[in-house]
Parts: sequence; structure tokens; C-alpha cells
Amino acid sequence: MERKRFSDLPRSLARCPEVVGEWQSMLILRDAILGVSRFDQFHERLGISRNVLNQCLASDHPLRHGYRLTDKVGDLWPVLTTLRQWGDEHAVPDGPPLQVIHKSCNQISDAVLTCSASGESIGARAVRAVPGSGAVETLAGSARSGKA
Amino acid sequence: MERKRFSDLPRSLARCPEVVGEWQSMLILRDAILGVSRFDQFHERLGISRNVLNQCLASDHPLRHGYRLTDKVGDLWPVLTTLRQWGDEHAVPDGPPLQVIHKSCNQISDAVLTCSASGESIGARAVRAVPGSGAVETLAGSARSGKA
Repeated sequence: MERKRFSDLPRSLARCPEVVGEWQSMLILRDAILGVSRFDQFHERLGISRNVLNQCLASDHPLRHGYRLTDKVGDLWPVLTTLRQWGDEHAVPDGPPLQVIHKSCNQISDAVLTCSASGESIGARAVRAVPGSGAVETLAGSARSGKA
Repeated sequence: MERKRFSDLPRSLARCPEVVGEWQSMLILRDAILGVSRFDQFHERLGISRNVLNQCLASDHPLRHGYRLTDKVGDLWPVLTTLRQWGDEHAVPDGPPLQVIHKSCNQISDAVLTCSASGESIGARAVRAVPGSGAVETLAGSARSGKA
């Protein structure tokens, strides 16, 4: 491993603080979905600092209404849901710790990823990646980097 | 904060090794989607140990075919996809680094989470959680813990 490449390498390490931050956001989101709404209840259940909690929670009238998630944290719901489903498949031999009911159809519901354009269900093999407007490096596989 | 509760608290810390492991799996998956297939290429791009790579990659004929992801890693695709979309919304002011084309309809595609029972799109407010078969603790909100 050449020294000159060191700055390129530890991407996974460099992202750790962000990942832990996102993970704490997901724990907060999980607890909110499970019915937690009071600041001190989040703090006691999760052991997350008040500083981080203040970045993830907002309240106009905390004493009356409890706290609500910021949009940035609430928008992690699809990530939490897909990660939960992955865990149910690969990491919980005793069965899922919780299940989700879709209120409008009243059925136990798994989230299925579908294409925003066609409505078909999609997976890794159904799609290919192309550079977006914020691309800073070329994609690794030349066969995959051509625009459609 | 009472001392006796200490063992309950650092759930987020206790999960950190798993989270970093999952995060490394997601980086491997991301690179595989971008076209990387050689063991050494994963190792050089990501700086992930050969030991971890060996747990995430498998190959019957590595010299001819390169490496393929294990199912456990490949099944993280929905998590990677929803996390990418969250990042595109909240963390990339210059625009998305990549976009996804759904091969069968040839359109730029966002993944939309839909209910496996009704096919409707779902979000945090459209669902409620109930204990699953592997539940080890009651849900925090009594209003949300009743079975459907």
C-alpha cells in the first residue's frame, strides 16, 4: 500500500463520525416511532447527549406537546425501515422484534422498493448507476458509466 | 442518571462495532454497484481489511470471474439506496453524485417505499408498530402497542 494513496483510503474511517451521528438519529427516530416524545425520555433511554438531541428534536411548546423530530431525522424513516427488514432477514434468529401495520389497509406490511417512474419493484440488478450533477469522480466500471 | 441504569443506556455505543461493520459492507456494496469486482481493487479503494473483505465477498473462480457479494451484503441494497436518497436530499448541496436508471423503463428512478399488502406508497405516518415474534421489550407508547 503506497503512502501517497493514504489520503484516499480511509473513507470509511473518515465517515465514522457522520455514521455514528446518523446512527444516533436513527435510534431517536426509532424511539419516536415507538411512542417516545419527551426530551428526558429520549435522553434516559438512549444515553445520547443533550447537545445531539437538541439537533434532532424541535418543539414550539415542549411542555405541552413534547418534542417532534426535525425533517432531517424524520426523513431517515426509509433507511430505518430497510435496515430493520435487513436485520429481520439476517440478524434475528428469534423472529422480528416488531412488525409494521399499514394503517390504511390494516395488514402487516413490508416495505417494497418500487421505481418512481414505472411503479415496478426494483432491486440491485434492475438498475444501473450513472454520474449525477454532483459527481466528483468517474464510476469504476466503464460499462456502467455511460449515460442512458 | 442513576448508576443502576448504566447497563441499559449505551445501546448506541454497544452497537457501534456492528454499525461500522454494516457501514463497511455498504461501502463494499456501493463499489460493487459501481463496477468493482476484484478483491485487490476493493482493498485499495476502501482500505478495508482482507479479513472483513473475505466475509463480504465470495468467489468460486476469483481469477476468471472476480468476486461477488454474499447475499447478506447484497441484501443491503435497499438500505444503501434509501440512505443515498436521504443524502441527496439533506447532505449534497452540489447535487447527487450519482443517479440510478431503472433498466426496464430506462428512466431516472428514485426508490419509493410501498406496502407489500396494498401496493400503496408508505411513510412513517402511514404505519404503526406492533411487537413481533422476537419482541423482548414492550413498546414505549401504549397507544401504539395494541395488536391490530
